[in-house]
Amino acid sequence: MKLNSIVFLIDCPDQKGLVSRISTFFFERGFNILHCEQYTNVKENQYFMRLKLDMAGLKTSRKVLENEFAEFASSLNMHWTVHYSDYSTKVAILVTKTSHCLYDLLLRQAEGELQCEIPVIISNHPDLEHAANQFRIPYHCLPVTKETKSQQEGLITKVLKQYHIDLVVLARYMQILSDKFVNDWAGRIINIHHAFLPAFQGANPYQQAFDRGVKMIGATAHYATAELDEGPIIEQDVVRVSHDQSVEDLTRIGRDVERIVLARAVKAHLEHRTIPSGRRVIVFSSGI
Amino acid sequence: MKLNSIVFLIDCPDQKGLVSRISTFFFERGFNILHCEQYTNVKENQYFMRLKLDMAGLKTSRKVLENEFAEFASSLNMHWTVHYSDYSTKVAILVTKTSHCLYDLLLRQAEGELQCEIPVIISNHPDLEHAANQFRIPYHCLPVTKETKSQQEGLITKVLKQYHIDLVVLARYMQILSDKFVNDWAGRIINIHHAFLPAFQGANPYQQAFDRGVKMIGATAHYATAELDEGPIIEQDVVRVSHDQSVEDLTRIGRDVERIVLARAVKAHLEHRTIPSGRRVIVFSSGI
Amino acid sequence: MKLNSIVFLIDCPDQKGLVSRISTFFFERGFNILHCEQYTNVKENQYFMRLKLDMAGLKTSRKVLENEFAEFASSLNMHWTVHYSDYSTKVAILVTKTSHCLYDLLLRQAEGELQCEIPVIISNHPDLEHAANQFRIPYHCLPVTKETKSQQEGLITKVLKQYHIDLVVLARYMQILSDKFVNDWAGRIINIHHAFLPAFQGANPYQQAFDRGVKMIGATAHYATAELDEGPIIEQDVVRVSHDQSVEDLTRIGRDVERIVLARAVKAHLEHRTIPSGRRVIVFSSGI
Amino acid sequence: MKLNSIVFLIDCPDQKGLVSRISTFFFERGFNILHCEQYTNVKENQYFMRLKLDMAGLKTSRKVLENEFAEFASSLNMHWTVHYSDYSTKVAILVTKTSHCLYDLLLRQAEGELQCEIPVIISNHPDLEHAANQFRIPYHCLPVTKETKSQQEGLITKVLKQYHIDLVVLARYMQILSDKFVNDWAGRIINIHHAFLPAFQGANPYQQAFDRGVKMIGATAHYATAELDEGPIIEQDVVRVSHDQSVEDLTRIGRDVERIVLARAVKAHLEHRTIPSGRRVIVFSSGI
Repeated sequence: MKLNSIVFLIDCPDQKGLVSRISTFFFERGFNILHCEQYTNVKENQYFMRLKLDMAGLKTSRKVLENEFAEFASSLNMHWTVHYSDYSTKVAILVTKTSHCLYDLLLRQAEGELQCEIPVIISNHPDLEHAANQFRIPYHCLPVTKETKSQQEGLITKVLKQYHIDLVVLARYMQILSDKFVNDWAGRIINIHHAFLPAFQGANPYQQAFDRGVKMIGATAHYATAELDEGPIIEQDVVRVSHDQSVEDLTRIGRDVERIVLARAVKAHLEHRTIPSGRRVIVFSSGI
Repeated sequence: MKLNSIVFLIDCPDQKGLVSRISTFFFERGFNILHCEQYTNVKENQYFMRLKLDMAGLKTSRKVLENEFAEFASSLNMHWTVHYSDYSTKVAILVTKTSHCLYDLLLRQAEGELQCEIPVIISNHPDLEHAANQFRIPYHCLPVTKETKSQQEGLITKVLKQYHIDLVVLARYMQILSDKFVNDWAGRIINIHHAFLPAFQGANPYQQAFDRGVKMIGATAHYATAELDEGPIIEQDVVRVSHDQSVEDLTRIGRDVERIVLARAVKAHLEHRTIPSGRRVIVFSSGI
Repeated sequence: MKLNSIVFLIDCPDQKGLVSRISTFFFERGFNILHCEQYTNVKENQYFMRLKLDMAGLKTSRKVLENEFAEFASSLNMHWTVHYSDYSTKVAILVTKTSHCLYDLLLRQAEGELQCEIPVIISNHPDLEHAANQFRIPYHCLPVTKETKSQQEGLITKVLKQYHIDLVVLARYMQILSDKFVNDWAGRIINIHHAFLPAFQGANPYQQAFDRGVKMIGATAHYATAELDEGPIIEQDVVRVSHDQSVEDLTRIGRDVERIVLARAVKAHLEHRTIPSGRRVIVFSSGI
Repeated sequence: MKLNSIVFLIDCPDQKGLVSRISTFFFERGFNILHCEQYTNVKENQYFMRLKLDMAGLKTSRKVLENEFAEFASSLNMHWTVHYSDYSTKVAILVTKTSHCLYDLLLRQAEGELQCEIPVIISNHPDLEHAANQFRIPYHCLPVTKETKSQQEGLITKVLKQYHIDLVVLARYMQILSDKFVNDWAGRIINIHHAFLPAFQGANPYQQAFDRGVKMIGATAHYATAELDEGPIIEQDVVRVSHDQSVEDLTRIGRDVERIVLARAVKAHLEHRTIPSGRRVIVFSSGI
């Protein structure tokens, strides 16, 4: 049986005694610490912690715990979030016409690898409705033109609210989102870019990779920001290729990397192991 | 400038409040925790911690600190070791005739990658004396036959003591050490096996790999134990090969993996990031 | 538009002039060679070739070409097979209860990555019928006990014949097939083993991997032979793991490797890039 | 015993019957083909071949063979080069202050992995003379300022001629060579760039990688061209990193990738497996 747990994600200016103070805060309230990871950015004197508690230690209401921690945290100038394992994150997947990342996420969720709900799939094209149907998930087709962009994003927002969405995954959604939309959902949109950023930004990276004769192709999952392809990177990977592989081969081979990189990034987010910080993301290694 | 630091490696039965108690022990004595990593083997209820302190917090003698911690530790049933960054581990390298691992370690030490001293090289053959000379390191040639094994190991032990050796690295030393020798140096001998253990134990693994047509070859660095090739694994890696590579190719390609795997394992040990535990090694990821 | 092509797979004792004779055979008949790869096992003096021809060069019937080549080949003591790109290999997938490899193959086939037909799925359990239904593929549930093994294999054989199956893929089919069945389908059954063979043969390799503390886990796709887990290896891959991952984590991480390794092996077979030879498989690198 | 061999590297417009014609040319002269690899760039209709012959088949002088092949080749509009295994390529290594790539090449040459001679090391600084001395190789220190660039390159050229150098390896030589120099040595200068090109061009790529929070760092070996960091890529590789590694860690980790990538690229060149073609390099996979 899996334990219920509470995860705190914390970042604050580094200072002496942080581990002791934080762990003692929870020890005094009767919590058992299941796992604790930390990182200090020495250059910027910033401290990051992921703390996982056994929920069995919770003797008060969640509200009381949060209020007490908020008071404690403000004395140390902390940013923090708290996550309860009995709450299931609600994920919307946005797609255009390419199915491999969509299917991959749906299957991993079905197999229990991604602990979340996927209550809705949104697309600007009708092409992938059959995939949604296979998994009995509502499919909202919201076409868009240059002229209708802001209206369409309004409709997307409405759908996201309707389903109480916590996280938006752009699983090869081939539209640039407006700054407003991206900012409204800051830290809650994960995009997969089909190249090893920062190389090959923009369109058609596999053609670029072929023309440049690179020996490895990659994929990058990042939080979306207003500057395209510049969002903080959550996960990357590459695969070796050679001169005798065509652009079509690279595209096909690249799909496997895209799938895996996106799945890992989504998993890290769902397990509350990511803290975005400027252009970087602190990704704690363990999902324990 | 690099900070001087103190590393505590701790393992004990898991129990509530460990992080709080340990961190508070050091906080109360004025230490700043530079880094803290932990791992719980849930199945065996065993807790492991690596704690790195700023040595500037040390207000007493080392002896006093250690005595105080020993008392604290015994109350929690801990095994522990302490390591001071201003002490330089003394490493003896044992070789036979193959030079690639030897050179690799010598160069990494010379370039400051491996923070240690290498005061002596020991071999059962004279072949690599020139390499020792290149780096001006004493070379002890101690030949061995089946009949003279125990005498030769006695001579090795004498040399190790003479140079105050802390760690023995078997850098392709092609002799099986006696159980007695291995036990005397338990947790302080690192061996490189030129295969991905547990596959291809024993001699000539590259021939075995070719005959079996495997698609990857590897190397394994482990602490030596009385049972050959069964010691707890510190590090492994592999590299892809194909059918058109000969045994000689595999051997050559394998050398790069051996080099890197051995260097990483030695580095992990020197940075006090390893805690052997039964057939496994806890290897903390960060050398910070 | 994709060219239609003809692939010849050839192996024979090595001898002077093979490339010239073979290429001239086809040149004289007006064929354009699209791609040619070869390998010589020097130790065993055996020569292997994969030759890809533009089918537009075919001026006679296939029968005539094959008869002429057969005569030519017998003078050089060749084994050979020929494959036409306009024929679609018929693949049966055998499963038990685990879905990840099954879904992966179905999706890759649907996306055009695996050029084949999958007319039937066979299982000894009813659990995965829904997956078959999602893709509208007939699902034959053929339960088996120790006592009914030979009858059940008889039923499997009947189904395979009914659908004119060319290749059987064991996508985590958790039954040991009889020697007779394996021999009848020699070179036409691909199995995925969830470990880096030859390490961790047999059941529960992820538990074995955890207990041994290995730093990488892998998967192996091989042609099935009467000796379990000893069949010639088509493809392998590994992924790095660490001490803080549980057996469940290793199992989950391993699934990604299993998926990809099996898919690559099936793809290599479908593209006629594999020639089994004793305990090894010659896998030509390029699918061009 | 290793066979003496002759390698032909060929590229020409694709046309029917090339394999047959070329292989027959050599068959008629009594040569045994040891290995043959080819690649067709379909888009540009360009054909590339690497042909390895048993030198025992040579019944005439090399001059006669070359003259006959030249005549044959001109009829097919070929570029080609020929290489005899009993000739040892002469390599000059250019360095500045960093030793890891230099040592790596020297050791691989000493161990027989790189079949070449290294008669001279050239540097713009005196720092690495001790390394040259360790291997008893002449060290030419040729300092350079902005004003003396063309004179210094004149001196370099003189040294290269004096030692009959065939290949120049820039093993972390931190000077930009003039267009004239690079063009004079086109296809005969290999450079190691300490980043995964085309990302992180220019100086201090490890700092860039840290700031951008990438999850992998890499290295790229390429033929030098007048446009810096734009030369055709011979080899690349990457290694995984995480947020908790400092710029110094990335630099250290990167050194291992640089070493290996440069060694592989030099090895490919020395084995006559590379044909530069525009912005790409055809790198034949096998050194057989």
